[in-house]
Amino acid sequence: MKRHPINIFMAPRSVAVIGVSRRTGGGSFNVIENMKTFGFPGKIHPVNPMAEEIMGMRVYRDVKDIGEPIDLAIISTPREEIPRIVEDCASLGIKGAIVVSQGFADADEEGKVLQDRLTEIARGKGIRILGPNTLGVANAFSGFTSSFMPLRRERASVGVICQSGIFFVGYSLFTGMLGKGVDLGNACDLDFADALEYFGEDDQIKVIFAHIEGMREGRRFFEVAQRVTRLKPVIVLKTAKTPGGAQAASSHSGALVGAYEVFDAAFRQCGIIAAHNVEQVSDCTKSLLHLPPMRGKRVGVITFTGAGGIILIDALQECGLELANLSPETIQRIKDLSPPWMRIQNPLDIWPALMKHGIDHVYATALKATLQDPAVDGVICIAIAPKLPEQAYLDVTRVIRDTAASFREKPVTAWLYGANQASISKKMERGGRVISFPTLPRAASALAALFHYHQFLQQTPSLAPSFPVKQKDVRDVILKSRMAGNKKLEGEAAHVLVEGYGIPVARSRFCKNLPEALKAAEEVGYPVALKVSSPQITHKTDVGAIALNLMSAAEMRETYHSCMSEVKKRAPQAQIQGVLIQEMIPGGAEVILGAKRDRQFGPVIIFGTGGIHTEVWKDISYGIAPLNSQDAEKMVSETRCSQILRGARGERAYDVDLIIECLLRISQFMMDMEEVQEIDINPFTVFHRGGVAVDVKIYLSSILSEPRGPKSVIQ
Amino acid sequence: MKRHPINIFMAPRSVAVIGVSRRTGGGSFNVIENMKTFGFPGKIHPVNPMAEEIMGMRVYRDVKDIGEPIDLAIISTPREEIPRIVEDCASLGIKGAIVVSQGFADADEEGKVLQDRLTEIARGKGIRILGPNTLGVANAFSGFTSSFMPLRRERASVGVICQSGIFFVGYSLFTGMLGKGVDLGNACDLDFADALEYFGEDDQIKVIFAHIEGMREGRRFFEVAQRVTRLKPVIVLKTAKTPGGAQAASSHSGALVGAYEVFDAAFRQCGIIAAHNVEQVSDCTKSLLHLPPMRGKRVGVITFTGAGGIILIDALQECGLELANLSPETIQRIKDLSPPWMRIQNPLDIWPALMKHGIDHVYATALKATLQDPAVDGVICIAIAPKLPEQAYLDVTRVIRDTAASFREKPVTAWLYGANQASISKKMERGGRVISFPTLPRAASALAALFHYHQFLQQTPSLAPSFPVKQKDVRDVILKSRMAGNKKLEGEAAHVLVEGYGIPVARSRFCKNLPEALKAAEEVGYPVALKVSSPQITHKTDVGAIALNLMSAAEMRETYHSCMSEVKKRAPQAQIQGVLIQEMIPGGAEVILGAKRDRQFGPVIIFGTGGIHTEVWKDISYGIAPLNSQDAEKMVSETRCSQILRGARGERAYDVDLIIECLLRISQFMMDMEEVQEIDINPFTVFHRGGVAVDVKIYLSSILSEPRGPKSVIQ
Repeated sequence: MKRHPINIFMAPRSVAVIGVSRRTGGGSFNVIENMKTFGFPGKIHPVNPMAEEIMGMRVYRDVKDIGEPIDLAIISTPREEIPRIVEDCASLGIKGAIVVSQGFADADEEGKVLQDRLTEIARGKGIRILGPNTLGVANAFSGFTSSFMPLRRERASVGVICQSGIFFVGYSLFTGMLGKGVDLGNACDLDFADALEYFGEDDQIKVIFAHIEGMREGRRFFEVAQRVTRLKPVIVLKTAKTPGGAQAASSHSGALVGAYEVFDAAFRQCGIIAAHNVEQVSDCTKSLLHLPPMRGKRVGVITFTGAGGIILIDALQECGLELANLSPETIQRIKDLSPPWMRIQNPLDIWPALMKHGIDHVYATALKATLQDPAVDGVICIAIAPKLPEQAYLDVTRVIRDTAASFREKPVTAWLYGANQASISKKMERGGRVISFPTLPRAASALAALFHYHQFLQQTPSLAPSFPVKQKDVRDVILKSRMAGNKKLEGEAAHVLVEGYGIPVARSRFCKNLPEALKAAEEVGYPVALKVSSPQITHKTDVGAIALNLMSAAEMRETYHSCMSEVKKRAPQAQIQGVLIQEMIPGGAEVILGAKRDRQFGPVIIFGTGGIHTEVWKDISYGIAPLNSQDAEKMVSETRCSQILRGARGERAYDVDLIIECLLRISQFMMDMEEVQEIDINPFTVFHRGGVAVDVKIYLSSILSEPRGPKSVIQ
Repeated sequence: MKRHPINIFMAPRSVAVIGVSRRTGGGSFNVIENMKTFGFPGKIHPVNPMAEEIMGMRVYRDVKDIGEPIDLAIISTPREEIPRIVEDCASLGIKGAIVVSQGFADADEEGKVLQDRLTEIARGKGIRILGPNTLGVANAFSGFTSSFMPLRRERASVGVICQSGIFFVGYSLFTGMLGKGVDLGNACDLDFADALEYFGEDDQIKVIFAHIEGMREGRRFFEVAQRVTRLKPVIVLKTAKTPGGAQAASSHSGALVGAYEVFDAAFRQCGIIAAHNVEQVSDCTKSLLHLPPMRGKRVGVITFTGAGGIILIDALQECGLELANLSPETIQRIKDLSPPWMRIQNPLDIWPALMKHGIDHVYATALKATLQDPAVDGVICIAIAPKLPEQAYLDVTRVIRDTAASFREKPVTAWLYGANQASISKKMERGGRVISFPTLPRAASALAALFHYHQFLQQTPSLAPSFPVKQKDVRDVILKSRMAGNKKLEGEAAHVLVEGYGIPVARSRFCKNLPEALKAAEEVGYPVALKVSSPQITHKTDVGAIALNLMSAAEMRETYHSCMSEVKKRAPQAQIQGVLIQEMIPGGAEVILGAKRDRQFGPVIIFGTGGIHTEVWKDISYGIAPLNSQDAEKMVSETRCSQILRGARGERAYDVDLIIECLLRISQFMMDMEEVQEIDINPFTVFHRGGVAVDVKIYLSSILSEPRGPKSVIQ
């Protein structure tokens, strides 16, 4: 922990505050003033060439004048001066710099250049940089903060990683608590992976939250997260999901935003809890911090209101939980208190009972019975939050809290309706045994998060399999193609590559002329398809470059000529390399198998509904390579087409095992072949048994592409 | 208004309270006590054979003993006595009865019988019934309530219709205000349509909210809603959406729940605002009550935080709004206050400006410029809700409120982040000019509701077209089929029906034997399809009852025999009526066109992705008949397959006009032919020009089916 590069940022012994304001009080945004109010016990050295004294402290003209060891510099000067100042800091042996100022990749071209300079300095001079464009850090335990906005100090076991000060200033709406926080800002050096790793090792932190607009090193983050999520829950709010949001994010923090689908797949694959909105962040944080694990999906509900029970049932179903099937003993205990005509079931509607036997007694009985019921994994209590004095007897907060406190092994949540929700909820949460939510769907979704995290911890992840493949042959083809300047491979070359990794391909021959085509068709066997090969043609159908179902040599002759002249007419610029003669594939289901090398996450595997309308159906799932077989299975299950593949409407199932194997093989291919940018097998036609790639396209990266980041795999 | 049957329930001059409790105070659920506290100025007559005096009032042993004119009876006796009591009330000339007691359709079989008895009495004896299983009504204007739960009286212009007391007791979480409320309970007599009509005519009510689990008379509700939504906004929360919820609802209020998709289609078609959750109910109610209309979808945003702006952009995109493209003048006014490197755009990030020029001045300037900008239709203000005293200068509530108050024609909303959100939001809303939301997506979604409601009011609904059709021929076929006891029509009979209404059908001949089939194939023209007709066979493929692409008479001969023997082998019980010989349909896109007669809403038209996997894709839209052409167009646009139909990937578009016409013709068919229960045309193959029904099934209702409700169309 002491050794982690972020430690010096979170608990410095001495700081230089460079570019500190001379003003203090409201609207001065004075870092030193906030630092002192927050309770920083270390040494503070203000630096400002225009001042002699600030808040009774001696002000240095330059950081070099301080003449004492300094752990950390906080820099808020105009942007032009910052690279020089950071270099000075580095040469003084300062280990970390927080660059607060804006105007870098968040602004204009000049700002981008300045930020790149900072990255270089961090790489070359042994100083780590947080920011620019950041409030820096807050640490309620050490009492240190670099925030120029006043913050409340509250020792809570929640670690916050963000790209905006809003999560510091407004933390009560997000995580509810902020024990330690790191605002990465534009993240020119320290990135999400660093902060996540730091909080992962930090025993004072029990739950980690990260706000992510975009990131440079997705692959490193993914790898760190795979470790950290096994130690403590990690909740993420990914913003900039839509094209408009992404565009705005690139000017907000200069981040690489990337496709939301890939982030989402990465989160789920490494056990991160992906919150869909701000409320979920706060609900999950509270629940994961305070409640015991939810070991199954069966929820017991106690309610005053049938209508509320119904809203909840809808919500449970939507988040993958289910109503517990209460045991006969539990049912009987409520039956004994209810009118004879009453159907007793879960949700336990106790209104008729309590009108007769009194509210406290009935609620306690029902809650106790439900908590003791082995058929129940978690409980939601619905009750009233009365405000009028004449309704005070309806308040069962104490009853719920006390009953829950004597049965601690299952999570208990509550929803209180009525005019006094906020304050009675607070009372309910005293002691941390029961968490109260503003709405029923939020209560359900919090229990679902507990359940899914528990489930994740139960799984033992398997290793990615390693199939015997013709790695050398494949590498040779790729090398030759790159040497020849071919960046798009299809037809023969593409077939060799995927076949080399064991993916079956439709019988095909590449032919230079009609005699070869006739011979090939005999070998492949009629009926055949004819596909004109040209690097300039992307959609063959549009220019008449494809003919299906040729039945005979005569038809081949005729079609060969007509196709050629059609293509020459409709795509005169296209260089025709020859034709591909391919067996016709009867029936089967069309899927897409593919992969692309994502800028943030490296190789990402793709599966979904294939055919020409893949883009319309958007029935696609993603997985970060290397995939293990659970990952590949999940990818298939997440799509709607898996219903067809597994046999919809009583049809025979298709060969899903083959699909899973092919996904694993593509994953291995992408891990091995760093030069491959993208694979697109669409359609891959899968049969009840077996399947073949019908159309394969492979894109290579440019020969001189420079690797980004520490590993060449991350481009 | 005075004449409306609900009026006597909302503003009675005198009431009999039958089965009143002798107890008073907390937990006594005493109706009279609540009525008095609420401020009812009329006459109250307690009835209870066990008491002489309650709260100083004379108690009658029986309602018949009162001997004075009574407007309304409130009945809370054990369920068995209630039918007799209601009959007594009716014979005394009492116009309305609120049946509070539970234990009817919400309970067991005996309860259902008792409830049916109440419905009969209401129909026969000239008394209207609200409930059973209800809190009844609350009317803050007249001061009357029948609720046994204490309620706060607040004259607000919000009318609430619900099926559960939770919306009375917890109204502050739902509508926020409750000027008048009607709890329909099990709705044995008075239903949603009645209450909606009542509030529609009520000038004291500006916004109507309805909580719906299920309803009997969907068609009447739909027709009333079509009128009321043009007068004032109607917000609906439909619960019991999921199968589990629906099941629970049927035991909660004994309601017919129906398919959520149909409800949802009905809501949208008649201009109802369908809230997805409780928060949306409260947000829409507040916004529609207080804010001016949002005349376009362009939103201007003023923010302290780039990250907040990004969250908002995602939210705007998700709810169909867009960021305004601010005019150069607006941009310039903020540029003048910002650092030179700052890119000024919407959202207007004013943080750097205010650090220099002061928070109030910059916020006011930005808000004024945005409100005056003709490129802006509505505004969202993002600001801080500070709690710490040293942050107090960050509170811009007054600035926002005052600036907004001088430009009243566009809606202004706010999101405040920070520890003091609730109380500063309340301050912000003072005067009703600005509405503040707990999250940004909620602010966006409230503006979207304003925009969509405004758009709805701008549209002039067109009439359903009336095509010239062969109504008499079709009616004859239906009559004959019913006489013959045929409930499922396919092949020839089904073709006559849809062709009679102008829907093109693939060329087909129904044949009794092979010679007929051969002749038919010549007429239709090879290649043809052969389909074995049998009422017992639903999925032809599964029993070999279908053969495609027969090319010649020889092939027909061979296939005819092989098909017959195959079917006899695989479906020995099937009665074979003959075969359908049909032209082969080349290419085209497969859609489903259909209709069913819904128990609540009557004829519902169906459109979507066709083919054998319709159930997997669930790409289906619904419309309530009679459709006008806008409705039919919307139905097509709502599906994903409309992208393909309108020409995805540069393909030629398909004949969408024909689809729309066919939907309108099916709508006319269903309105005309009450005996038709369901039409299922799947696939209907649509070409670039033209299209044909390939497979048509029509289901008739049972001959002796009794019409339900006042119109036989609602079954």
